[in-house]
Amino acid sequence: MDHPTQLPTSEVDVVIVGAGPAGLMSNLWLSTFKGLSVRIIDKRTATVYAGQADGLVGRTQEVFNSFGFEERVLKIAQPMAEFSFWEPDRNGQIFRSSRTADGPPNMSRFQGAVLHQGYIERFLKDAIKEREGPDVEYGMQPDLLQVDESMVEGDDSHPITLRIRHLSEQESAPSQFGHTIANGLFRSTNFSTSEEEDQAINTIAKAGTQEIIKCKYLLGCDGAHSWIRRQIGVNMEGDQTDFIWGVLDIHPLTDFPDIRSRCSIHSARSGSLMVVPRENELVRLYIQLEDLERNMDGRIDRSKITPEDILRAAQKIITPYTLQYDYCDWFTAYQIGQRVSTRYTKFDRVFILGDACHTHSPKAGQGMNVSLMDAYNLGWKIAQVLQHKAPRSILATYEAERRPVAQELIEFDRKWSSLFSGKLEPNDNQAEDGLLEEFKQTFEDAKLFVAGITVTYAPSVLVDKTSHQKNDHSTKVLSKTDLAKGIHLGMRIPSYRVLNQADARSWHLQDRLPSNGQWRLLIFAGSMIDLAQRERVLAFADYLLSPLSILNTYASEDIPLFDIITVHSGPRTEVELSHFPPPLRKMSEYNNVFVDDHSYLEPFGDAYKNYGVDSIRGCVVLIRPDQYVSWIGDLEDTDKLETFCRGCLRRLPSSSSL
Amino acid sequence: MDHPTQLPTSEVDVVIVGAGPAGLMSNLWLSTFKGLSVRIIDKRTATVYAGQADGLVGRTQEVFNSFGFEERVLKIAQPMAEFSFWEPDRNGQIFRSSRTADGPPNMSRFQGAVLHQGYIERFLKDAIKEREGPDVEYGMQPDLLQVDESMVEGDDSHPITLRIRHLSEQESAPSQFGHTIANGLFRSTNFSTSEEEDQAINTIAKAGTQEIIKCKYLLGCDGAHSWIRRQIGVNMEGDQTDFIWGVLDIHPLTDFPDIRSRCSIHSARSGSLMVVPRENELVRLYIQLEDLERNMDGRIDRSKITPEDILRAAQKIITPYTLQYDYCDWFTAYQIGQRVSTRYTKFDRVFILGDACHTHSPKAGQGMNVSLMDAYNLGWKIAQVLQHKAPRSILATYEAERRPVAQELIEFDRKWSSLFSGKLEPNDNQAEDGLLEEFKQTFEDAKLFVAGITVTYAPSVLVDKTSHQKNDHSTKVLSKTDLAKGIHLGMRIPSYRVLNQADARSWHLQDRLPSNGQWRLLIFAGSMIDLAQRERVLAFADYLLSPLSILNTYASEDIPLFDIITVHSGPRTEVELSHFPPPLRKMSEYNNVFVDDHSYLEPFGDAYKNYGVDSIRGCVVLIRPDQYVSWIGDLEDTDKLETFCRGCLRRLPSSSSL
Ligand SMILES: Cc1cc2nc3c(=O)[nH]c(=O)nc-3n(C[C@H](O)[C@H](O)[C@H](O)COP(=O)(O)OP(=O)(O)OC[C@H]3O[C@@H](n4cnc5c(N)ncnc54)[C@H](O)[C@@H]3O)c2cc1C
Ligand SMILES: Cc1cc2nc3c(=O)[nH]c(=O)nc-3n(C[C@H](O)[C@H](O)[C@H](O)COP(=O)(O)OP(=O)(O)OC[C@H]3O[C@@H](n4cnc5c(N)ncnc54)[C@H](O)[C@@H]3O)c2cc1C
Repeated sequence: MDHPTQLPTSEVDVVIVGAGPAGLMSNLWLSTFKGLSVRIIDKRTATVYAGQADGLVGRTQEVFNSFGFEERVLKIAQPMAEFSFWEPDRNGQIFRSSRTADGPPNMSRFQGAVLHQGYIERFLKDAIKEREGPDVEYGMQPDLLQVDESMVEGDDSHPITLRIRHLSEQESAPSQFGHTIANGLFRSTNFSTSEEEDQAINTIAKAGTQEIIKCKYLLGCDGAHSWIRRQIGVNMEGDQTDFIWGVLDIHPLTDFPDIRSRCSIHSARSGSLMVVPRENELVRLYIQLEDLERNMDGRIDRSKITPEDILRAAQKIITPYTLQYDYCDWFTAYQIGQRVSTRYTKFDRVFILGDACHTHSPKAGQGMNVSLMDAYNLGWKIAQVLQHKAPRSILATYEAERRPVAQELIEFDRKWSSLFSGKLEPNDNQAEDGLLEEFKQTFEDAKLFVAGITVTYAPSVLVDKTSHQKNDHSTKVLSKTDLAKGIHLGMRIPSYRVLNQADARSWHLQDRLPSNGQWRLLIFAGSMIDLAQRERVLAFADYLLSPLSILNTYASEDIPLFDIITVHSGPRTEVELSHFPPPLRKMSEYNNVFVDDHSYLEPFGDAYKNYGVDSIRGCVVLIRPDQYVSWIGDLEDTDKLETFCRGCLRRLPSSSSL
Repeated sequence: MDHPTQLPTSEVDVVIVGAGPAGLMSNLWLSTFKGLSVRIIDKRTATVYAGQADGLVGRTQEVFNSFGFEERVLKIAQPMAEFSFWEPDRNGQIFRSSRTADGPPNMSRFQGAVLHQGYIERFLKDAIKEREGPDVEYGMQPDLLQVDESMVEGDDSHPITLRIRHLSEQESAPSQFGHTIANGLFRSTNFSTSEEEDQAINTIAKAGTQEIIKCKYLLGCDGAHSWIRRQIGVNMEGDQTDFIWGVLDIHPLTDFPDIRSRCSIHSARSGSLMVVPRENELVRLYIQLEDLERNMDGRIDRSKITPEDILRAAQKIITPYTLQYDYCDWFTAYQIGQRVSTRYTKFDRVFILGDACHTHSPKAGQGMNVSLMDAYNLGWKIAQVLQHKAPRSILATYEAERRPVAQELIEFDRKWSSLFSGKLEPNDNQAEDGLLEEFKQTFEDAKLFVAGITVTYAPSVLVDKTSHQKNDHSTKVLSKTDLAKGIHLGMRIPSYRVLNQADARSWHLQDRLPSNGQWRLLIFAGSMIDLAQRERVLAFADYLLSPLSILNTYASEDIPLFDIITVHSGPRTEVELSHFPPPLRKMSEYNNVFVDDHSYLEPFGDAYKNYGVDSIRGCVVLIRPDQYVSWIGDLEDTDKLETFCRGCLRRLPSSSSL
């Protein structure tokens, strides 16, 4: 066992360790690209457990939509419409002091919704299968990681060596799953297929054996206790607080009127509670636990906490309403801690993602969402580097873009959690309690942030914008942000309705931006009935057809690297498809030219107005494969566009001359 | 083979012959009810073919939604937004003379869409599987049908004897499928699962053997050439015209600008053509064929028509635009004929449905829709009779309700087809041609009818309304139609948005009316902040709880026969769930009380206004399991409600006293 050279050895492009949300999203993204070899392993068995995350924010659903399975979420998730605040009156009795919309209006088409993590993992796996991506290999755990530093800049080298051990059934049993609290991890077989169960059995047959995998990239998606993180010597910064919270997933029996609304209940003397209604008539309760027994060392042994303990605490808070349950799906108890990894990568070869680089309380419902988005940020970059379409330098943007998101989240969570757990000042007029006012205000202020749509990536080779860092004189900004005041460099492009010129069908623009690895050249053609403007559009099209244009320089072996989408400002009935020359539109292609006009059936999108684009002169927007905005310019700014692309794209060795 | 008594014999409740849309919808409906035994057989092999129907009207999609799979349609179907009219100018050159919305605005949430019949059959089969309904047994054909008239009124008798023959592969091959034109029936394996292929092989192994099935009800869903129809001695009334039309399903190469819009093209001298854009970038063309060679007997041999012939005819019509294709999915040629069966049933034991009782041209896109709706009308009635929940007399409503629908369709189709095929008068100003004006007007007038939402069933034991037939003095109308001016007896209840009182989630009312066999008591509670009105609501609830109420008289062994839905007029925030007594709302039930109020997220439904119900005093509406409206009354009209129910429901033998 100690002679790695004698072990079976194989080579792949990427190994993903951990098949939680971050690992599966990585796998899905990589599966979208042709020709990559990927393995994904996990130390546990295939069965998915109840419990864990359940909040899906707007941005996550936009991404699911871009992978084509959001309708499955919409069908069963419980949408979050309202948040109610409950607090004690003068007599210490709780009452509903106010209600507000749960999410920000009109900022994402998809509102916050609640759905058990097991469904999400199921949907991700099904989408991977559709793309013929690799199945998860369960019951496997790495026990040795080496990176050959001399090889890290090589194009096709495999600098990473990983030794893997196949586990026995016992070793991969639930008590080792994710968090260390074993109790409360009930098996739920609803979410695994029979093939997966079979595969799990096969895996167990190899128990005890080892193998070596050499790979180009390694993704540590192995959760809060990440082994990969430890191997690359990265620490977590932050702290652990003393508050203990219990979680109950139950089918409730109660006369509390807002049990199907998300709400916070601050009691006068018994701590607080959050209600999160869920799919299938379940409700999740987050309950502050007080008066817990301490060990000799003063610490609380969370493994001793039972559902009955948690229910009792909840009953105290919710009194005079009654609360019981006739079914408990899952429970756990956790201690709030907010921590972020100091680094997200080693050599831009080994990366950590998801809970492996940030942990915090679950009450803001962000952990799974941010973990999924880490993977959504990184996946296409690695794929395009592996396909030689992009230089390795783009990989540095992963940490640069995602670590600040985690830091911001941790800040928010620290504030939100402490306001949630905070003791009310004993005073006569508790309704006016300052803490509660701050709590409500924090909730209002955070709606956009929580929806995940305010994430803004800093300037880099992938985002061309003015740097706010003083010393960054080197950045030469190539974009003209004024041309599209509703589109922000480094943010995901918002979605408004446009009509297909060919069939008058109304589209949300984002539906035209599936996650398939393509960059998008979004051409706001402006007014095609203005002859001077039409000339400008024709000139831009001519540029694109010219041999040295970005289209022809950065050719791709599979699908075109650039997907061209044109939106003109109408009116639709005065413009014909034939007004759009190639490559804006080719014969028998009917899904590239759109118009900002009224629809027969759907509400008007007002796209030019919402995107802040001049309806005569338009502009051009370059969008990354993950829907974030890279560059904005005029139809004449083709040199700037080229300069920008040189920084983040790579000519194929096989591609045409020059 | 000629000694039926020696053949293997079995008994079931229902046999469905034919697994096209009508047969599968029948199967789906019956599978929704617990405890019925059903077999469904079809003479062809399992493989589904390309071609056939592809238009899905709004009402059909509402029904798919009620069975829980409409989102699959929405994901891939091509929605129909616009219809363009093309006609010849003075010089005989075609031009786009006008455009209009394809469907009626706001009448159904679901707009007309196009999706290949193979998908629809796939979705139906998957939904049947989910409900654990029976698989189709392919390669089986009945060759003897006997009905024992002495047994037809018996409760649990099996008056029908059917002898079935298992076919060889050759016998069940495509040339026998549906229409007699074999050419153009290309196999498409996209739509059948591997299990189905296996099953088909097993079936073939039995080739040549026979069996006897005795059943209570027999559904003839065996298409235009229905064998069942002939066995029960029913004829088709109507005629066959001489126009021959070709159909091409192609991926087009053309510069015709409206190829992705539904449109009609009337050429000056070469006949007409209809364009129907489809899913997966396909387009269907309906093309009038002229100058066809005739046989000695003066008849046209349609089997000699090739796709090239049809394309050539299309090219002539569409000139000066060019038209080619790089892929042909399917083609056929047909002759227009409009015919309806004289009867739809024998003894209310054997029924015919779908194409077995009506045929017409496909250009109005109605055949599959009306066939599906035939089955949707009949399925629950048979199920409730079999479950002893309803008297056999309700079965007479099938023919009474569905035959007029077919007749109206045939009338429309006759007009529409002749306007479509009609010759233009050679005149100077063709744009003003009277025929074309009538064609456009007919299109506008028919939008609601075509969407399938104007279907209105006549008075019967299932629809309580004033009869328009002079001699029907016996009908005593129990309803007060003025109480809900937007709801019409005998029509499907329209859908508007309401909010769930418990969680502020916005619902389309129809989403709360799934096809699960339940009758709905829709209680418009009016204003719950008006104390007098609240008393009226409490009194109605008291009635429902009383031992002789319809709830307690017509108990059911599986799910409750009546589903109670309450919609009050708001405001939501001034009313609490606890204001609603049982049975309007029970503890830990949060999906029965709704309110007509503004939503945080969705457009306001204005339900009381749209339903035409007084927002103070409300009313009560009784809705059939198929969403058609049976009865409307005041909260005090419980005696009328009881009288109505006595006509169409049956006390369970086991149910409580009296
Ligand atoms: C009670 C609770 C409520 C929550 N609520 C929410 C919420 O509402 N919204 C939200 O967004 N998030 C929520 N979260 C957080 C969310 O569950 C996590 O953020 C998310 O699961 C992180 O995903 P991940 O893929 O990074 O890690 P994990 O889901 O932890 O997956 C890590 C995987 O790696 C495997 N693994 C670990 N070590 C190894 C190893 N050495 N070798 C091989 N495999 C290994 C594990 O078996 C596991 O499958 C909640 C969490 C809890 C506990
Ligand atoms: C070119 C074309 C275009 C069309 N377009 C549309 C459209 O856009 N919209 C629309 O709504 N409709 C359209 N239709 C009509 C539509 O296809 C039919 O109305 C529909 O299929 C009828 O359904 P059905 O179940 O009644 O019969 P069918 O689909 O014909 O099914 C009958 C089934 O019974 C089986 N069968 C027949 N005889 C026997 C027997 N003796 N024993 C056992 N099994 C038997 C057959 O194998 C078949 O599977 C179109 C039809 C055609 C040909």
